[in-house]
Amino acid sequence: MKIGVLGTGMVGETIATKLVALGHQVTMGARSRDNEKAAAWVKQTGGGAAQGTFADAATAGELLWNCTAGVASLDALAAAGADALRGKLLIDVANPLDFSKGMPPSLSVGNTDSLAEQIQRAHPECTVVKAFNTVNCHVMVDPGRVKGEHDLLICGNDAEAKGRVREIATGWFGWKSVLDLGDLTAARGIEGYVPLWVRMYGFFGSPDFGVKFVR
Amino acid sequence: MKIGVLGTGMVGETIATKLVALGHQVTMGARSRDNEKAAAWVKQTGGGAAQGTFADAATAGELLWNCTAGVASLDALAAAGADALRGKLLIDVANPLDFSKGMPPSLSVGNTDSLAEQIQRAHPECTVVKAFNTVNCHVMVDPGRVKGEHDLLICGNDAEAKGRVREIATGWFGWKSVLDLGDLTAARGIEGYVPLWVRMYGFFGSPDFGVKFVR
Repeated sequence: MKIGVLGTGMVGETIATKLVALGHQVTMGARSRDNEKAAAWVKQTGGGAAQGTFADAATAGELLWNCTAGVASLDALAAAGADALRGKLLIDVANPLDFSKGMPPSLSVGNTDSLAEQIQRAHPECTVVKAFNTVNCHVMVDPGRVKGEHDLLICGNDAEAKGRVREIATGWFGWKSVLDLGDLTAARGIEGYVPLWVRMYGFFGSPDFGVKFVR
Repeated sequence: MKIGVLGTGMVGETIATKLVALGHQVTMGARSRDNEKAAAWVKQTGGGAAQGTFADAATAGELLWNCTAGVASLDALAAAGADALRGKLLIDVANPLDFSKGMPPSLSVGNTDSLAEQIQRAHPECTVVKAFNTVNCHVMVDPGRVKGEHDLLICGNDAEAKGRVREIATGWFGWKSVLDLGDLTAARGIEGYVPLWVRMYGFFGSPDFGVKFVR
C-alpha cells in the first residue's frame, strides 16, 4: 500500500521503517522537500522509502499517519492541504505535549478538547482515528516488547475507519487487545493519559511498558 | 484509631463504613453538624460512627480523609481550619471533576496544577498524600472486587506519610500493588487519568475495574 507518514522525528521514523519492512511504499513528509532527517532515512532504508513535503506525502499516501509533534500538527496538516487529505484515513498518533516550559511537559490542549478533535474539525475532508499515542513508538509497532498483556486504546467518529485501524494494529503490528472507546471526544481521555505515562516512564526508568485495564 | 472522614457522599460513606468495620472510631464531617446524610449513616452504622462539622471531624481524627467533591474540597478544608489539620496526614481521594457543563465531566484543575497540590499549598500544616482516586470507591476499600492484578497509584511530598498510606492500602484494604510516583506534582498525572477512567467506565459498563501497568 502507498502510505504517507507526516513527521521526521523518532515516532515518524519508527513507524515509517516498520511500514517499509512490511512491504509498503512509504513517503515521509516534512516541511521542506529536502529535509535532512528524511533524506538520511531514505538513504538507510532504501527501496520503498521516499521523502517529500507534507503535501507530497499526503498526496502519495492512500493511508496517512500524523507523527508530527502535537504542537506542530495543525500547521503540518494545513501545509498538506485539503486536496491531499480528502477521503483518506489519518491515524493520529501525536500527543499535544508542550516542552517549552520545561519538564515534565504540559498538554497544549486538553480537558474539554483534544488534538484529535482539533485536527478533525480543521480537516473534515479526512477521517481521523486516534490510536497508538499511549505507548512509546517502539511499542506501537512491536507491542511484544512489553511482556504482559496490554491494551491499545483507539477512538474516532467512523466505525469503518476504526475497523481498519484495528486490523492494522493486530494484523500488521501484532497487537492482541484493541479497545474502541467511542467517538473522537474520547481522545480527551486518551491524550489526557499521557502526563501519567510520562510519570510512569520516570517510575519504571524505561519506556517499554503498557497499560492493561483489568476487570 | 480516631479517624476523620470529610464528605458525606458515596465515597465518604463507603470509606467511613469500611473504617468502622475495621474497628476505628470515625467522625464523618459535613458543612453542618446536623447533616442528614451523615445522621443516616451514623444511625445505620452504630458504634464507632459519629458526625460533626468539617472542623469537628478534622479535630477528632488523628488521620484524615478528604472525600468531598473535588470542586468543594478547598472550601471544606478551609472550614476544617488549620488548627484541626495541623500535623496530620490527609489522604486525598477527591477528583476535581466539574459536572456543571454536562457529561462527561471536565477537570476543574489540571495539567500544570492539581487538586492535591492546591490543598497542600493552602494547608502546609498538614501532609497530603494523593491516593485511591483512580478507582471507584467500592474498589478503593475492596480491591479484590477486580479479579486481575491492578495497581494503586500514590504520590506526596513526605516519604513517611506515603509509607503510612501504603500500609493502610495493603494492611487495611488488601491492595497488593502500590506504586509511589513521587512528589505531589505527580497528582497532575494521577488526577489527569480520571477522564480516561470515565471513558473506560462507559466501555465496560461497570465501575469495577482497575489499571495495571505492564512491563
